[in-house]
Amino acid sequence: MPELRKDPVVGRWVVISTERGQKPTDFPMKVEPKRAEATCPFCAGREHATPPEVLAHRAHGAANSPGWTVRVVPNKFPALMIEGELARRGEGLYDRMNGVGAHEVIIETPDHVPDLADLSEERIAEVLSAFRARLNDLRHDKRLRYGLVFKNHGEAAGASLEHTHAQLIATPILPKAVQEEIEGARAYHTLKERCVFCDIVEQETSEGNGRRVVRATPNFVSIVPFAARFPFECWILPRTHRPVYEAGDAAQDRELAGVLRDLLLRLNAALGRPPYNLVVHTSPYRDIDHEYYHWHIEIMPKLTKIAGFEWGTGFYINPTPPEDAAAFLREVR
Amino acid sequence: MPELRKDPVVGRWVVISTERGQKPTDFPMKVEPKRAEATCPFCAGREHATPPEVLAHRAHGAANSPGWTVRVVPNKFPALMIEGELARRGEGLYDRMNGVGAHEVIIETPDHVPDLADLSEERIAEVLSAFRARLNDLRHDKRLRYGLVFKNHGEAAGASLEHTHAQLIATPILPKAVQEEIEGARAYHTLKERCVFCDIVEQETSEGNGRRVVRATPNFVSIVPFAARFPFECWILPRTHRPVYEAGDAAQDRELAGVLRDLLLRLNAALGRPPYNLVVHTSPYRDIDHEYYHWHIEIMPKLTKIAGFEWGTGFYINPTPPEDAAAFLREVR
Repeated sequence: MPELRKDPVVGRWVVISTERGQKPTDFPMKVEPKRAEATCPFCAGREHATPPEVLAHRAHGAANSPGWTVRVVPNKFPALMIEGELARRGEGLYDRMNGVGAHEVIIETPDHVPDLADLSEERIAEVLSAFRARLNDLRHDKRLRYGLVFKNHGEAAGASLEHTHAQLIATPILPKAVQEEIEGARAYHTLKERCVFCDIVEQETSEGNGRRVVRATPNFVSIVPFAARFPFECWILPRTHRPVYEAGDAAQDRELAGVLRDLLLRLNAALGRPPYNLVVHTSPYRDIDHEYYHWHIEIMPKLTKIAGFEWGTGFYINPTPPEDAAAFLREVR
Repeated sequence: MPELRKDPVVGRWVVISTERGQKPTDFPMKVEPKRAEATCPFCAGREHATPPEVLAHRAHGAANSPGWTVRVVPNKFPALMIEGELARRGEGLYDRMNGVGAHEVIIETPDHVPDLADLSEERIAEVLSAFRARLNDLRHDKRLRYGLVFKNHGEAAGASLEHTHAQLIATPILPKAVQEEIEGARAYHTLKERCVFCDIVEQETSEGNGRRVVRATPNFVSIVPFAARFPFECWILPRTHRPVYEAGDAAQDRELAGVLRDLLLRLNAALGRPPYNLVVHTSPYRDIDHEYYHWHIEIMPKLTKIAGFEWGTGFYINPTPPEDAAAFLREVR
């Protein structure tokens, strides 16, 4: 079973693989090579190449056979394992925990399509609905505190398979970055009695402003954030206060699918189909006051390298002013 | 002048370039191509290709001419500018500051050597002495709160020039990652009245332990940390309480040079000369109680990719148990 270890200084948890005998020559990491369509384990007809499905949207066919449009399976090489006790142990000043959790793959289409943006809005809405369904299901497991849905698109962004897919990892601890975001939002709410994300939406979309807005629809806005870490980093936020992504409904899926597809197509047009990481930021499963958190999606095109300065400081250098990036993205379609 | 912007939720500062008109087609970032020896601006004889030196160790020759062994120059494309006022301004709920600071390059040898590990211990000691001298000099600038020395080695780790060099960035704010480390060390000290790094050294080097130790000398120890984020991540720590790296002396430089060179050679032998980031963690210039902080060096070989999960959670997946990595590194030379 994988092991969780906590850094005794900054309190950062790390998943340590406990498979023994990994030799230095096994690096660069044994990622599966990007497979061609002929052998892709995510294509319809190769359902046996993955663990059995935990969810499928299907018009016909039996479980683990063709006929589906979106299919969710456990990751074949999971970072965390769903079975086991959440035992905590010390070792002198150090802390360990069993690597219990969930690690699933959301296969976004049965066809060998490499880019989510090439699916129709209706199909993307189905994918978003599967994200919600899996987050809602895992919430019932009392060992889990947070569910994270993310996409690594393109090899430079960490994707090991070309066929478009997302991942869900549910963790038994509240991850550090999530905790920081929540603490920040709580501190703002304590001071102002308002949600900081609501205030961001208000300021970005107010009359005469809009320099960082890419697109606004009745219920969503896509922006380049004021303090973007990366060139062309974009966020999508609901325009009214919504703490929990997976509490949404089919209407949310449909409108969000349109906004997301539009943004991905703009990034593709502006940057030549860049690799990117997409992360859904939603409320933790437990111990959260829904007054101050507000779900959103962060998309980070992979255009620059993270190096010693960023590692040493947590401080980023972004060569593209967010206002310029937003202007390019507004004009590109 | 570059601009500093603060994320209103997590409090992370970002450097935003204010040069206008950067087009999306300028990405991937306009890094200078890795130059061959024939045109390398860091080689002896091409001193005119860099801004004038701020420090040089030289046996002979005038400033900005050959005859040096280590040479420090301002970065030609600085992330922060040394001249200007530290003006702070708001924009609704957002915070900005002028991008005042220092950004220097430490050229580690006059010869076109791509790897610091290929220099002798004596020459590495000279480089370490230059790190100290520049950190000590910039401390006098009252606008600056932190000085970070780091190395990006190899293109995958963000190096844009092959000739071995390090960088120093001094910032007008205390960077988030530094602040977190200091808060963690302070909290531990409040609880135990001991330095957490001293306790780490004690536990790692105690009788019958040593599974994560790579090498110990009278005053230093190199280890693979308990909660390493990356495969073969290594730290070098002084074995007794030393808060400020740059308060060291020539004896420190000499012994540390031996430990650092040994560790880099082991990583080269184990992993086939991997790209890496090296970061010197030292005390902030001001407002720090020296009881609880302890300088150290972190080296992160670049073997895996940071992807959506890490961005969303600040939580890392390390496929190599630290004990296995340390055993490989102990045995490899």
